[in-house]
Amino acid sequence: MSRGDDTKQRIVTEAAGLFNQKGFEGGSMSALMEATGLEKGGIYRHFSSKEEIAAEAFDYALKIATEARIRDLDSLPNSVDKLKLFIANFVERRSSVPGGCPILNTAVDADDGNPVLRDRARNAFRQWLGRLESIVKAGIKAREIRPRVVPGNVATLIVSSLEGALMISRIEKDREALLSVRSFLEAYLERDVRRS
Amino acid sequence: MSRGDDTKQRIVTEAAGLFNQKGFEGGSMSALMEATGLEKGGIYRHFSSKEEIAAEAFDYALKIATEARIRDLDSLPNSVDKLKLFIANFVERRSSVPGGCPILNTAVDADDGNPVLRDRARNAFRQWLGRLESIVKAGIKAREIRPRVVPGNVATLIVSSLEGALMISRIEKDREALLSVRSFLEAYLERDVRRS
Repeated sequence: MSRGDDTKQRIVTEAAGLFNQKGFEGGSMSALMEATGLEKGGIYRHFSSKEEIAAEAFDYALKIATEARIRDLDSLPNSVDKLKLFIANFVERRSSVPGGCPILNTAVDADDGNPVLRDRARNAFRQWLGRLESIVKAGIKAREIRPRVVPGNVATLIVSSLEGALMISRIEKDREALLSVRSFLEAYLERDVRRS
Repeated sequence: MSRGDDTKQRIVTEAAGLFNQKGFEGGSMSALMEATGLEKGGIYRHFSSKEEIAAEAFDYALKIATEARIRDLDSLPNSVDKLKLFIANFVERRSSVPGGCPILNTAVDADDGNPVLRDRARNAFRQWLGRLESIVKAGIKAREIRPRVVPGNVATLIVSSLEGALMISRIEKDREALLSVRSFLEAYLERDVRRS
């Protein structure tokens, strides 16, 4: 990387934490200048607008969060075990970007706000739901998952309950809600999803 | 109400929609001035700070949302039916305050931000979880709910999955996720919670 690329990446990394914690409106350029030690001109040499910074920051935060959530998934042959590891990763693995789940934060921040960020949050949800759906579909095909299970419903339940529990856990500053939902989902996958 | 009370209530009502859609940082005083038709001085005659406006606006939005969610609950004698009506109300009844669930929005907005709003969001979650827990406890006592069901876990599952689904539905601008989770929760309550 050139020194310019290096500076640009540093801006994106700092912006990811800033916007993920404070939101698009709450994350100010002056806070970003302070975090990076750059003047405004030094930042805008790499980006055309605050929106462009926030969009690249979201992509970065999403990449880091996704890596944590899918970690070791490919090493498991069984589809139900994959779903359970995904849930465990979501609950146990903290991203290096502070502020919680970037999809949740950006979705709530941008559902009535910035359309570029809203599109990104929506696409991230679709990708995430699609990934879980594919695991369930493969599991049905491989006779690891009951044939009557509806892939989209399983994916929606897992994503909804984990995101909701994360929000409660973050506001309570304890893991109780996340652990409660994890344990529910694991029992559900064993009892109602796995083909016995 | 005096004309002053009337003006104050109008500010709170407009601020509730504004902050619920845009967040504390994103909801600007100039937008509130425009929505109310008041000058800055006319607003600050009733409130000492933007934070005080946002706090009263949250209380108002929460009151309206809570009324919608608990509507007709007392008319049902059975605790499982109460839980099901609560879920139906959450999915079907839109609050008059735009922007989605004020607890979800404020929790995500304030978990790394304003402490006054964070406290209010946390207390609102606790009240809500506590209300559902009480229904489950009463149901166990009345032998309508299986004795082994853990009230706190049922409450956490319902709140987490509904809030997560609401977030997906809002970003997707369709009700699919909410309807999927509602149908899952109803089947779960009938099969695993109701005492047969």
